[in-house]
Amino acid sequence: MLYPNNNKKIYIKNINYANRGMKLESLINDANHYYNTNNIALIYKKPTPITIGSVNYDKNGKVLTKGYFNTKSTLDYVGIYKGKYMDFDAKSTTSKTSFPLNNLQKHQLEHIEKVIKHGGISFLIIEMNNIIYLLKGTDLILFICNNKRKSIPYNYIKDNGFEIKLKYNPVLDYIKIIDKFY
Amino acid sequence: MLYPNNNKKIYIKNINYANRGMKLESLINDANHYYNTNNIALIYKKPTPITIGSVNYDKNGKVLTKGYFNTKSTLDYVGIYKGKYMDFDAKSTTSKTSFPLNNLQKHQLEHIEKVIKHGGISFLIIEMNNIIYLLKGTDLILFICNNKRKSIPYNYIKDNGFEIKLKYNPVLDYIKIIDKFY
Repeated sequence: MLYPNNNKKIYIKNINYANRGMKLESLINDANHYYNTNNIALIYKKPTPITIGSVNYDKNGKVLTKGYFNTKSTLDYVGIYKGKYMDFDAKSTTSKTSFPLNNLQKHQLEHIEKVIKHGGISFLIIEMNNIIYLLKGTDLILFICNNKRKSIPYNYIKDNGFEIKLKYNPVLDYIKIIDKFY
Repeated sequence: MLYPNNNKKIYIKNINYANRGMKLESLINDANHYYNTNNIALIYKKPTPITIGSVNYDKNGKVLTKGYFNTKSTLDYVGIYKGKYMDFDAKSTTSKTSFPLNNLQKHQLEHIEKVIKHGGISFLIIEMNNIIYLLKGTDLILFICNNKRKSIPYNYIKDNGFEIKLKYNPVLDYIKIIDKFY
């Protein structure tokens, strides 16, 4: 049935992008939970590396009373998919024109290179302009080797990355993209 | 030249096994460092999962002032070798006759099973009777499925595990054993 004015109205919910980073992380965690419970893959968030300073005991057991954050964390997610080692990170940027490379630390780039060298799968999930892309580690490294820029132009991500189209359950089914090229 | 009494004496240094667990861990860390710097494999110790309670800032930056130890840590080591995902743990026991299974938690066993199911490599490095063995995850699971015992007899480990003979650089070259059966 058509509406009186002959227009089918489609309402799209406004999404609050204030906490984009958190939102992206929770989509990845949901997908990982889905992959894990459905025996598709085993992927988890690496714990934040913390150097233990002092420890105390209370009624609930051991409690850390002083801890230092190591800066040398590698990438956020690690896991196994079809026997392959997978290691990746998620980044969100509010910039519309380019992805700032200071989002990545030198030792993180080295880590990506090493994972690739050992035959593993490494990539970034990038949220930019309300679209989520998967950018292969090799394409990231290639850009950095061939450019002196401090950011990756949006066009490079659009042309070389793969859009992860959101769908129902899991919303961010990034492993579908992995199937395409590995 | 022979000794006067015609016996060649061999002196073996006494090793202090008071801190066995620590010693085994440091041998594994040394091996991982060797594999990493020589581009043989990329294997690292997983950070201890800590739930952040409260955080403060001092002159050195962010400091954790309260943290809780999650009990659900999986296995201690993770990494990549020849493209394959590898996930394992190290255990030391002072018992001479059997390896107590309370060394392993239920969710750790489930984790080993999952890694194997997804085509990864999972195993235990066990130090027992001053010998270091590598016991494949499959042989561990098989024992548990077919036995109601609360410990694995030493003979099972001797017969099904692989002795990792100590040598020079790295001392605990456990990847040599991986090459044999994967």
